[in-house]
Amino acid sequence: MRLVTTVGELQMWADAQRAAGRRIALVPTMGALHAGHRALCDEARRRADVVVVSIFVNPTQFDQSADLEQYPRPLESDLETCRGAGVDAVFTPGVGELYPEGSQTWVEVTEVSRPLEGRSRPGHFRGVATVVSKLFLAAKPHVAVFGEKDYQQLAVIRRMVRDLGFDVEIAGHPIVREADGLALSSRNVHLDAEMRRQALVLSRALDAAERAVSGGEREVRRILHAVALELGKAPLLELDYAELRDPETFDVVSGEIPGPTLLALAARLRKPDGPPRATVRLIDNRVLQPPTRSEE
Amino acid sequence: MRLVTTVGELQMWADAQRAAGRRIALVPTMGALHAGHRALCDEARRRADVVVVSIFVNPTQFDQSADLEQYPRPLESDLETCRGAGVDAVFTPGVGELYPEGSQTWVEVTEVSRPLEGRSRPGHFRGVATVVSKLFLAAKPHVAVFGEKDYQQLAVIRRMVRDLGFDVEIAGHPIVREADGLALSSRNVHLDAEMRRQALVLSRALDAAERAVSGGEREVRRILHAVALELGKAPLLELDYAELRDPETFDVVSGEIPGPTLLALAARLRKPDGPPRATVRLIDNRVLQPPTRSEE
Repeated sequence: MRLVTTVGELQMWADAQRAAGRRIALVPTMGALHAGHRALCDEARRRADVVVVSIFVNPTQFDQSADLEQYPRPLESDLETCRGAGVDAVFTPGVGELYPEGSQTWVEVTEVSRPLEGRSRPGHFRGVATVVSKLFLAAKPHVAVFGEKDYQQLAVIRRMVRDLGFDVEIAGHPIVREADGLALSSRNVHLDAEMRRQALVLSRALDAAERAVSGGEREVRRILHAVALELGKAPLLELDYAELRDPETFDVVSGEIPGPTLLALAARLRKPDGPPRATVRLIDNRVLQPPTRSEE
Repeated sequence: MRLVTTVGELQMWADAQRAAGRRIALVPTMGALHAGHRALCDEARRRADVVVVSIFVNPTQFDQSADLEQYPRPLESDLETCRGAGVDAVFTPGVGELYPEGSQTWVEVTEVSRPLEGRSRPGHFRGVATVVSKLFLAAKPHVAVFGEKDYQQLAVIRRMVRDLGFDVEIAGHPIVREADGLALSSRNVHLDAEMRRQALVLSRALDAAERAVSGGEREVRRILHAVALELGKAPLLELDYAELRDPETFDVVSGEIPGPTLLALAARLRKPDGPPRATVRLIDNRVLQPPTRSEE
């Protein structure tokens, strides 16, 4: 497995792979790799001849410096995970490599970036779109694989790729969950036992909404009521948002859901005895698929 | 000479050139090609095996719809110019090809874009950076050639390429001038005889500044005074700006010029009998090279 730290070296590696007729897959990560990332690597392997994983905790997508500082960075075990997944190259640039001195160039996707995470975390998606552009230009992939847990991020990247004309196929991969339903996240390490137990209401709220919609419910008000009932069972949870949105444009859906509709959740889990700011922010989502009218 | 109208076809053409080991040069233009563009094509030919010229009047870099509408579009004679220059491919996309439905992605270079043209034409460089990114991703060039008449544009693109990590060499080409000094521009066709005569004060002002600096003058105030004397000789001219700036960062230079310094001019030529808004905007510039202290 090759370790690469500079953009120039990665571009030369990518040029050599392309010259040899090999298809390149990129898995962009911020490290702290878990089974969800491993699934992305396996998907990348299925779609290409060589797999490059980038590990870079991108400062420009953090709106809170405390969140950036406490983001886990277990590099050695991450490299072990990559080796185990048969990854061909790992790209671990320093901040100054992706943001050279005097950096002032931003890539911004406007409408899709505005609601949900964009409203809760100002500048977040500008940082994401900018760094993903840099990673695409460095690794020159044919395909890039992203997890659907960051569903809005995936929509932002798909829109960016279409608008700018990146010659990169974007593959989304379903959320990987623990046996009890908790979506895997690098932030889960910050949960203590009681927080973790209460965090389960997120996936249970998605399940409740899915059951309602499968049963024929299309009214936004009633679907969100089913969600609220589940979330209300966790006193340590402070809801950030629970919204139904068009899965591509992210326009808000009101009245009745017209077809496949994204249910997106974000919440903070408070530490039972911690100071007020000691919280862990979690997100989860599911695309709800109403039965066609003829099935009802 | 191949005519290409879609991004997908150009990417396939570029991939084939690269697979054959050929070096690709891109010359981005808005058409209305003149001898200045021809010089860019010749430079491109010297630097690469195959040359692609893009002809696209980019709507997002025009802040005035009248300017966009009256921008000349002589496609047939442009193609003739390209054939004469031995160009291999011409890319003439429609607006919807580079800005697909629902487009909302922008590339922005902040500091360098702010003064001079950026102040006079809000949004101009955001449009330039965005469309040049799209053209780079479509043509996949090894090198791209730009004229130095749009000196700030060249600085914006160099900064963008460095920040995002585009694997593209940026080559600037000196301004091409008429025998009497007027910088070539697609907008010169809108000048009548008297406007054209008076437009010469722009290049003469640059000459005057250059003479002063060669003679040992370093004081910004005195250099700009020499410029003002020349510009004052043209009653049809309305100055937009005449400024001394760092040629890379575009920081303003005050006191004495410390080394090579950009003198940038922009002005509107008024039609002698036309309505107040019938003006032609021209720009010109020169990097002033003060003698080293030991030469003085």
